[in-house]
Amino acid sequence: MNCLDHISSGRVMERADALARHSEQQGGLTRVSLSPEYRAASELVLGWMREAGMQARLDAIGNVVGRYEGDRPGLACLMFGSHLDTVRDAGKYDGMLGVICALECVQALHAAGKRLPFAIEVVGFTDEEGVRFGVTLLGSRAIAGTFDPKMLEAKDGNGTSLAEALRAFGLDPARIGEAARRRDELHAYAELHIEQGPVLEAEGLPVGAVTAINGYTRMAVTVEGSAGHAGTVPMNLRRDALAAAAECVLAVERIGSAEPELVATVGKLEALPGAINVIPGCVRFTVDVRAPVDAMRVRALEAIGMEITAICRRRELVLRNERTQEMGVAACAPWLIERMERAIRDEGVGVRRLPSGAGHDGMAMQAIADIAMLFVRCEKGISHNPAEAITAADARTGARVLLRFMEEFRPKEPL
Amino acid sequence: MNCLDHISSGRVMERADALARHSEQQGGLTRVSLSPEYRAASELVLGWMREAGMQARLDAIGNVVGRYEGDRPGLACLMFGSHLDTVRDAGKYDGMLGVICALECVQALHAAGKRLPFAIEVVGFTDEEGVRFGVTLLGSRAIAGTFDPKMLEAKDGNGTSLAEALRAFGLDPARIGEAARRRDELHAYAELHIEQGPVLEAEGLPVGAVTAINGYTRMAVTVEGSAGHAGTVPMNLRRDALAAAAECVLAVERIGSAEPELVATVGKLEALPGAINVIPGCVRFTVDVRAPVDAMRVRALEAIGMEITAICRRRELVLRNERTQEMGVAACAPWLIERMERAIRDEGVGVRRLPSGAGHDGMAMQAIADIAMLFVRCEKGISHNPAEAITAADARTGARVLLRFMEEFRPKEPL
Repeated sequence: MNCLDHISSGRVMERADALARHSEQQGGLTRVSLSPEYRAASELVLGWMREAGMQARLDAIGNVVGRYEGDRPGLACLMFGSHLDTVRDAGKYDGMLGVICALECVQALHAAGKRLPFAIEVVGFTDEEGVRFGVTLLGSRAIAGTFDPKMLEAKDGNGTSLAEALRAFGLDPARIGEAARRRDELHAYAELHIEQGPVLEAEGLPVGAVTAINGYTRMAVTVEGSAGHAGTVPMNLRRDALAAAAECVLAVERIGSAEPELVATVGKLEALPGAINVIPGCVRFTVDVRAPVDAMRVRALEAIGMEITAICRRRELVLRNERTQEMGVAACAPWLIERMERAIRDEGVGVRRLPSGAGHDGMAMQAIADIAMLFVRCEKGISHNPAEAITAADARTGARVLLRFMEEFRPKEPL
Repeated sequence: MNCLDHISSGRVMERADALARHSEQQGGLTRVSLSPEYRAASELVLGWMREAGMQARLDAIGNVVGRYEGDRPGLACLMFGSHLDTVRDAGKYDGMLGVICALECVQALHAAGKRLPFAIEVVGFTDEEGVRFGVTLLGSRAIAGTFDPKMLEAKDGNGTSLAEALRAFGLDPARIGEAARRRDELHAYAELHIEQGPVLEAEGLPVGAVTAINGYTRMAVTVEGSAGHAGTVPMNLRRDALAAAAECVLAVERIGSAEPELVATVGKLEALPGAINVIPGCVRFTVDVRAPVDAMRVRALEAIGMEITAICRRRELVLRNERTQEMGVAACAPWLIERMERAIRDEGVGVRRLPSGAGHDGMAMQAIADIAMLFVRCEKGISHNPAEAITAADARTGARVLLRFMEEFRPKEPL
């Protein structure tokens, strides 16, 4: 019996349901890191790891780490992972599907009694979303050795610091460094994740090969004009901050549409004072720009900056424009993209390359390893929402492609 | 000594300051109707009326009414008025200046021992602004006989109904009808008011003749698209409600600018869910359209309706568009505008006609009388704000023009 025949989409879907039952609220899913429900979910995953023939443990920051030895003990590993924490009122697949599918692959190897010429590790990362402490990628940063000890002071909504939460979970904040892995321990890092976007669905494909995790820049823009009575100030004497902001919103949309893989969004906009009979004197809005190539994002930012400056100058408004967050592209390694594509093709599926607009643990992992990602189609592109949905057939295809990638994997070069 | 020489701008400015001291808060001005501070202000005005040789009383709804008989008792009157209530955190002149200037004119007649061939009445209206009970023009509606008894059930922020507030003030809600005046008791109604806009200042004129109190329509618009992840949904698959709303805002501005005396404003806009990394799925905004001619407003509303429908159709969004408030133009009577202009010209001031974008008690009074309005320049057009300011020289010009209008007034026809 072929390893691939051991993949069970039923088990994958059941495990997603089982994890979703560990939530802080009933009738919905919220599971932040280092919480009682996070511990329960971790224990479930640790059990599944052992069932798949792996050594399993919690590491120094609370990641769930399982190891399936290669054809001899102590070999460098091919690492798979995704996260076990969720956003508030989350779906069941964002993060968890990547952990469950990787375990499904190892379980298949184990069932077939197959060892590979390298070890496999599967990590369920803690706190990718950053919901609890407002800092993302905590688990993967710890493994990558880029965890900043200053983050230990970050506090959750109850005033509990990350350091305190770690201690309450039975971990020692002073020993987080022990979670770090060396570059020569890993051949590569690969992650399966739901797409969280509509591209695969629009193209009728169950999976796609990710080219890069987009870089992003976020800006806070304030446009200041003059408030005034909506009845008494003639149109030609107005300095309407909302009309100016409306032009800016359309400029952001137009510039974001100029290149196919660029996106630019005004997600938040507040018009002040905000009364039906008052001309808005001040508008604050955000801009979020993402691209799979840093130069593309930089060009878009320059164009947006020039446009909104020109709009405000023409309308005699005061503009303030501040960059609040920025992160460069985390490109998937071309040699890994090729291997992922070969696995997709071998499964009989059309190959589509696409960038990831959302952030993932690979952004941290690239500090110590080349990275690859496989996206699984999700319904209507909906994510961060209880309506997040995938089909069992797509879960099966995703797990089978991941297993092909795993079985056919050969290190790029000796470590 | 000429009556005009009795006008004292010092007294006008001092009285505005004196009224402003009757406020619910220290260091600012808020005076809602039927409050203790409203009573104190009323008593001040009643005293000034008597000083000016008038009979003075509170009427059945709490308006302050003073009467200066003509050359024989019991003649029909030329009525002047404005309001004594304020918005929250108000300026000192919106409303009060019209009452104080009218009293200044009567005081001048009284000082000169002059009687006119008609009576003069001056009314300080209660609750023009509608701050306390959410219903505007209460005092002037009562005098016009258009007070709707259903309004007695309107409640203030503390749950006190208008009926209860009237009783607490010593008035009987059942007798409000007694405040109503008959058409044959009035030759006309005239009101001096600060402009609350920047037109007179921009043209270097202290006063202007109002042509009409603009009609207005207010709309609540909802545009619904699809929320989505700002990183994962490609631009060409988005149904961004904020980008659509931005086009609508610019359409409203463009249509509002098509005719010189038309104004159209989006004052309130809310983008949901309102997160930096989420494409807005729903936007709610308001539209306020005003014009001095009803047909002009109707044309603008049609154009706005067609434009936003086309925008939403092109972007495949769902549009809901509801008219929430509407009131037709209250045109000033041409024969009264001419007399007001003559008074302005006789004062040696250039004549500027302009519409009133804001609402005034004349909107209610036109039910029983032809109406006229005189605007006084205010600094930067600022109103409904503690920064509201006028000069003593402009107050003097305003009061002198009003007195010229009063002295030269002749009824259009015998009543």
